[in-house]
Amino acid sequence: MTVYIPCGGDVRAQARSGALSGPTCGLAPDYLQANLVIVSQDIAVDFMWFCHRNPKPCPILEVMEPGTFEPGHLASGADIRTDLPRYRIYQRGILVEEPLDIMRWWRHDLVAFLLGCSLGFEAAMLRAGLPLRHLEQGCNVPMYRTKLPCKPAGSFFGPLVVTMRPLVPAQAIEAAIITSRYPQAHGAPIHFGDPQAIGIADLTRPDFGDAVDVRAGEVPVFWACGVTTQAAVIETKPELAITHAPGCMFVTDRLADDNAITP
Amino acid sequence: MTVYIPCGGDVRAQARSGALSGPTCGLAPDYLQANLVIVSQDIAVDFMWFCHRNPKPCPILEVMEPGTFEPGHLASGADIRTDLPRYRIYQRGILVEEPLDIMRWWRHDLVAFLLGCSLGFEAAMLRAGLPLRHLEQGCNVPMYRTKLPCKPAGSFFGPLVVTMRPLVPAQAIEAAIITSRYPQAHGAPIHFGDPQAIGIADLTRPDFGDAVDVRAGEVPVFWACGVTTQAAVIETKPELAITHAPGCMFVTDRLADDNAITP
Repeated sequence: MTVYIPCGGDVRAQARSGALSGPTCGLAPDYLQANLVIVSQDIAVDFMWFCHRNPKPCPILEVMEPGTFEPGHLASGADIRTDLPRYRIYQRGILVEEPLDIMRWWRHDLVAFLLGCSLGFEAAMLRAGLPLRHLEQGCNVPMYRTKLPCKPAGSFFGPLVVTMRPLVPAQAIEAAIITSRYPQAHGAPIHFGDPQAIGIADLTRPDFGDAVDVRAGEVPVFWACGVTTQAAVIETKPELAITHAPGCMFVTDRLADDNAITP
Repeated sequence: MTVYIPCGGDVRAQARSGALSGPTCGLAPDYLQANLVIVSQDIAVDFMWFCHRNPKPCPILEVMEPGTFEPGHLASGADIRTDLPRYRIYQRGILVEEPLDIMRWWRHDLVAFLLGCSLGFEAAMLRAGLPLRHLEQGCNVPMYRTKLPCKPAGSFFGPLVVTMRPLVPAQAIEAAIITSRYPQAHGAPIHFGDPQAIGIADLTRPDFGDAVDVRAGEVPVFWACGVTTQAAVIETKPELAITHAPGCMFVTDRLADDNAITP
């Protein structure tokens, strides 16, 4: 019997054909997945600077040349215009469309950024036997805008967005240690415990994703999140910005653990 | 101008001469310090087994041959009978004396264990800019008996004893990551937050050491503590057990960072 384990290219081919139009979570689990942000060349340096000043939410995996749609470093032969399941088009900070490809939006002055996401460290948490409530509940991870400002850069500014995973304290300690080894997947948590300390009024009402149960004895643990870039697009209102739709990531040819720091 | 930085041997010489009879905290800060536990040969295997089953509170640095008083691995030429500032003598679990040396208690059937202590990771925390309240307040770290039982081994059993350091959540996360690199100095915390979850009724009344302030926004963070072995001696009531007096450690010739896991 042959067991079929999909690789990054398999997932991209499904997205390219239109067979896959939803979240990539759990698909090709050994492969690094990436957030996509595309802006025009005239503000690309501002955005790159914003990422470098805020490396926990915005760890840069690859920056592409203007007009280039093949990410040679992460997935040779791929096309970031078609190989994600679904995209978001923002005009002046307003979400105007969620297309399955961006061929009709593509321009020669666009610069694509691929940024680390938390799926890499979630696989490591699961291997360590740590629970992930959003997976248990079959929903998206809850995400919250915080009152913590990102460091502004050029025209870009906005709040830090975080994901939340509930854990008992001993698990939270182990999760902090494990995820600290994945700096290109947001690294260690930025906060745990009192949500109001970082400006979250109500855990049951996330700004993105789905609410999950926090059980007796558990504390909410918060990690920086790549959706921080979308919050910055909404605040900064550039003429055009294209991102992946939430959860519909670019699946690379790199193994998730390639960039881990080994203890 | 020559700056004099004391080494492990300098501190041991002061203890041996009687000039130093108090805590070694802060002395020869670059050098690994160790807990001392001495038991008779007939229960030494039980105690070694107890340490191996409870490596967070009891990380073994060196076990000496019966009747041997020179720890060849950690400090060649030293004498564990005289080179600590102060000792504790327990008979059937009762503290009977706190002598400055143990020459009159020494026997040829005694086996000495040197175990890791938290001073190594505290130096790393300070280098990272993390606060240590007990140092700020000029007192000993607070220690608490918990309701968490150690894994019993042979005749040895007893509760886990923990130290507590108050930190704000972001500092607690950084401290967990840093201290996880020092498995021979108790490693990462075992708990944070609610003291009652691990059986501590009142943080202001530690079982050993001194109470410290927990300020608004801070959470108590708990690490396994070498005093766990003294709690086991008190519970297990061996005919004789000799330990260091609290804070009066054996200062080795090894650098504290030699055993750190580098990221």
